[in-house]
Amino acid sequence: MIASSQKHWSGDVADLLRVGEGFVLADVDTRSTPGYAKDKVHAAEDLKAGARELDEYQERLFARSRVDATDAAVLLVLQAMDSAGKGGIIRHVVGSVDPQGVVLSAFKKPTPEELEHDFLWRVEQRLPASGLIGVFDRSHYEDVLIGRVRQLAPAEEIERRYTAINDFEKRLTKTGTRVVKVMLHISPDEQKSRLMERLERPDKHWKYNPGDVDERELWPSYMAAYQTVFERTSTEHAPWHVVPADRKWYARLAVQHLLLEALEEIDPHWPAATFDVEAEKKRLTAS
Amino acid sequence: MIASSQKHWSGDVADLLRVGEGFVLADVDTRSTPGYAKDKVHAAEDLKAGARELDEYQERLFARSRVDATDAAVLLVLQAMDSAGKGGIIRHVVGSVDPQGVVLSAFKKPTPEELEHDFLWRVEQRLPASGLIGVFDRSHYEDVLIGRVRQLAPAEEIERRYTAINDFEKRLTKTGTRVVKVMLHISPDEQKSRLMERLERPDKHWKYNPGDVDERELWPSYMAAYQTVFERTSTEHAPWHVVPADRKWYARLAVQHLLLEALEEIDPHWPAATFDVEAEKKRLTAS
Repeated sequence: MIASSQKHWSGDVADLLRVGEGFVLADVDTRSTPGYAKDKVHAAEDLKAGARELDEYQERLFARSRVDATDAAVLLVLQAMDSAGKGGIIRHVVGSVDPQGVVLSAFKKPTPEELEHDFLWRVEQRLPASGLIGVFDRSHYEDVLIGRVRQLAPAEEIERRYTAINDFEKRLTKTGTRVVKVMLHISPDEQKSRLMERLERPDKHWKYNPGDVDERELWPSYMAAYQTVFERTSTEHAPWHVVPADRKWYARLAVQHLLLEALEEIDPHWPAATFDVEAEKKRLTAS
Repeated sequence: MIASSQKHWSGDVADLLRVGEGFVLADVDTRSTPGYAKDKVHAAEDLKAGARELDEYQERLFARSRVDATDAAVLLVLQAMDSAGKGGIIRHVVGSVDPQGVVLSAFKKPTPEELEHDFLWRVEQRLPASGLIGVFDRSHYEDVLIGRVRQLAPAEEIERRYTAINDFEKRLTKTGTRVVKVMLHISPDEQKSRLMERLERPDKHWKYNPGDVDERELWPSYMAAYQTVFERTSTEHAPWHVVPADRKWYARLAVQHLLLEALEEIDPHWPAATFDVEAEKKRLTAS
């Protein structure tokens, strides 16, 4: 049983959201809740139960890495259009586990130093060590998304990157890292209403960037770039998942599920003691 | 009013815990709860209310740093004997705020590369950027604690470090970082019972290190080293706080309070919009 703590799924969410052969992004209904027939009240209950399960898995993963020769880690890659809810996933899903077991990396516009290296250089440095859950808020995929839409690199360089990404991710999975790739998918209308809320609430003004409206003009180009990303980089070892995200509660629950599944596949056990427990009890008592 | 969300304090906890003139570590009762006459049920209520307040402060601090030219940040320095509860503070106090606003650094035995630099070199690299709450799980103080107890450096080098630390922390505070220094203080008996629990529970074995018992032999030397640290480095700009930590609930509440106080002193306001809100509403509507 996978993610047994989340009781109200009616289908295998990972299967339903996974990008496979013949996937068409334009066919995804951003307001849908694949595999979940219940409402947000049940979802809140499931999210809470899932948080406890995630917390224990994370601690086991971390514990094992401190004792055994294991290289197991998890990397959650989050990609999305602005306001789709990456921040909410980090706060409400990732934020429910012990911060000591998480390493968070936000990738912004590359610095001049980063631009002097291959696009994977800065990503490599932020990979989670064994025992940790790494979270990429944007990632190396920016280099084939905005990179392509804004023509920040020549077409043949963009082309080269898909293969480079697949090789890179294959190495990660072969060396113990489960790569969980998620695109949070909202509609342009939903984005409009979220951006409007940022304009209407003074405590949200800081999140608003006039450039976001300019990016909206390029929505179709971004969707085309995502479609190509899915076709070229949704691999067996590191498949993509497209999560309908107009309903925040669904997106959070689904991403939590994907993390739970990755951890369950690692199945980290509490490590055995590397010392003589009874002898240590005596030493401690005498100390 | 400071930390108004924590309602049940009967005294000014920061004042009560601050290391001032004539402070004697040996006089601190590790089971005491200075300034808090209520029990752990009330403390749980206060911790929850404080978490909401901390969360909002942190978001304001972060928001402001994205918009205004501010260099405000917070640095929480945690020092303690093993099993005193640093991990619990990180999990239950720091863990209640958005992970995107926190940067956590655990300082372990220095690497060969780190040893080729001054002791402050590795610390400098982990300082929180503006808008962030940095947390040091151990810190540059290890270099005058275990460094002194285990004689890892000559006496005159240890001596030099106190002044170097004061200069360093003065620079931090002058450039906008509030430095909150906390020693979690437990008794040797409390430590013994916590270590025993680690031996008795298979899911805690990984946290047990036989070396911890050897360190217990050096308890008096560590306490002497802490006493010197307090005398030499509890300054006006970056005072130490000794938090009695035999009762975990008290320690967590007190540290949360100290963080709230630091943030309240910064008093971060939501930044004003740097764009024409009404004009943006029109642009967005038309997009």
